[in-house]
Amino acid sequence: LPAITRLHQVLAAIHKYPSKRVSVAVAEDPTVLEALREAREQEIGEPILVGDEPEIRRIAEEVNYDLTGVEVIQADGPVRAAECAAKLVRDERADIVMKGHLHTDDFLRAILNKETGLRSGAVMSHVFILETTHLDRLTFVTDGAMNIAPDLTQKADIILNAVYLANVFGIECPKVAIVCAIELLNPKMPATLEAAALGVMSRRRQFPNCLVGGPLALDNAVSVVAARHKRIESNVAGEADILLMPSIEAGNMLAKSFTYFAQGLTAGVLLGAAAPVVLTSRADSAEAKLYSIATAVLTANIQRHSRLKLGKVHY
Amino acid sequence: LPAITRLHQVLAAIHKYPSKRVSVAVAEDPTVLEALREAREQEIGEPILVGDEPEIRRIAEEVNYDLTGVEVIQADGPVRAAECAAKLVRDERADIVMKGHLHTDDFLRAILNKETGLRSGAVMSHVFILETTHLDRLTFVTDGAMNIAPDLTQKADIILNAVYLANVFGIECPKVAIVCAIELLNPKMPATLEAAALGVMSRRRQFPNCLVGGPLALDNAVSVVAARHKRIESNVAGEADILLMPSIEAGNMLAKSFTYFAQGLTAGVLLGAAAPVVLTSRADSAEAKLYSIATAVLTANIQRHSRLKLGKVHY
Repeated sequence: LPAITRLHQVLAAIHKYPSKRVSVAVAEDPTVLEALREAREQEIGEPILVGDEPEIRRIAEEVNYDLTGVEVIQADGPVRAAECAAKLVRDERADIVMKGHLHTDDFLRAILNKETGLRSGAVMSHVFILETTHLDRLTFVTDGAMNIAPDLTQKADIILNAVYLANVFGIECPKVAIVCAIELLNPKMPATLEAAALGVMSRRRQFPNCLVGGPLALDNAVSVVAARHKRIESNVAGEADILLMPSIEAGNMLAKSFTYFAQGLTAGVLLGAAAPVVLTSRADSAEAKLYSIATAVLTANIQRHSRLKLGKVHY
Repeated sequence: LPAITRLHQVLAAIHKYPSKRVSVAVAEDPTVLEALREAREQEIGEPILVGDEPEIRRIAEEVNYDLTGVEVIQADGPVRAAECAAKLVRDERADIVMKGHLHTDDFLRAILNKETGLRSGAVMSHVFILETTHLDRLTFVTDGAMNIAPDLTQKADIILNAVYLANVFGIECPKVAIVCAIELLNPKMPATLEAAALGVMSRRRQFPNCLVGGPLALDNAVSVVAARHKRIESNVAGEADILLMPSIEAGNMLAKSFTYFAQGLTAGVLLGAAAPVVLTSRADSAEAKLYSIATAVLTANIQRHSRLKLGKVHY
């Protein structure tokens, strides 16, 4: 299959697979319900709405979302709703879980609960997918939403999650740039040392299914011209599919600046749980939310119906 | 005077003042010489070129830069060239200093040298200026190029430098957003605690000439709609002029993503030295370099010819 290079292509890719069910924690939110209405119309997924039932029905009517045939489950308060939404996935009544109108912390606590949550043993991490107008590929940015200050081991696992997602998108051997503020090694910037370490791990074939290189600055990670300017020798420079961020702040800044300064289109998904998790932010557009749902649905389908597996780092 | 809201307006603002002299360390670089040629044509500044003289003359010819009347000083190697360029400012033969084709570290060592450099006693910090198409104001981002992981005291000083630059641009009481990955206080994210502290300092009137607020995420710092979505109470949210970054990585990511994903126009200047310092990167366009020179020239003019002063934090 050719690689997906534009977010709308995710929709077509989904339609080769059976429909998926999305459990939504605290669904009583206009933009969430709009995105789900659209997801249903485009046959991307069928929701199970968890939360304050009267409020869900009231807002659904407001946004012209006909709930005929849609399961709505009453749950008292956001914590219960999140637990219930996670349980629906654990009981295989839903394939993916989505955060509605509640605090990320409350939502993630239910997902991460060791007994009742959706832990799979793998590290959980978030990936933003950026659709730039001038690049002929999507750009995967990780982790700008979950892991605050990952150490070297966590960074390696975060890379694997993103590589898996790139594989899901049909990119067989994604190029992973370890992005720092500069492309030089600077002992005062620990991120540059870890970048060098990750690059050497890749050259020693410790990472499956990808090429990893760094440290690179953002410009010479994504722009061949900038990489050439600095005469950087790297099989990743200028052509990165995946950008590993040094911190949640850097990743968040990159993704949000892309939305707010470049008016760019993004999607996002949380990987490493037993099922893909949709973790959009309130300020996201309904379109961004729709593509995030679609990305999670595609990932769930590939997890279920293909032999593609999450890789392992060789230590 | 009305505030400058577009970078080209810097050029007009300069022309009210006497011409300024720019000493350039290691000037033998095509894009540097192109920017200086343009700076001279537009009467922004007169250069003194320091470096490998034959090479400077050869490249100047290549980029059609007529060096008649331009002083060229031979210096052997980048370290000597940087020292010489700094000395020209110290001896008041130049008003600003610019980095040419040498490593930032080598350049800054000459600027920061306690005996022969350009230290003024203030903290030195870098500001990126972003011209967005959809905002009716410029956005000042600090510090994405010099201070790696500033502590609270350094952050306060970095704010003052940026406020001074905003004042130079005619913004009398700039709004400063302390930007983090989230707008909530999270004990696991030290940047959010420091953001809260800086906001309280502002409410206690410890910062002159500005309003400071945080923690804010990038979206609710620059977008009124996003700020309203989250119902954030802040006199800065959605309207920030200055974005204080939690780390060099976050700031660098923001500025570079703006250049590479939004094709946006930027300028940059290093503040806090005895004279403004132009610190462009090789991959910057000649236009970006020109606006950076112009910003430094305007700053030098205001430093010299107005009563505007760098503020002090009240502890």
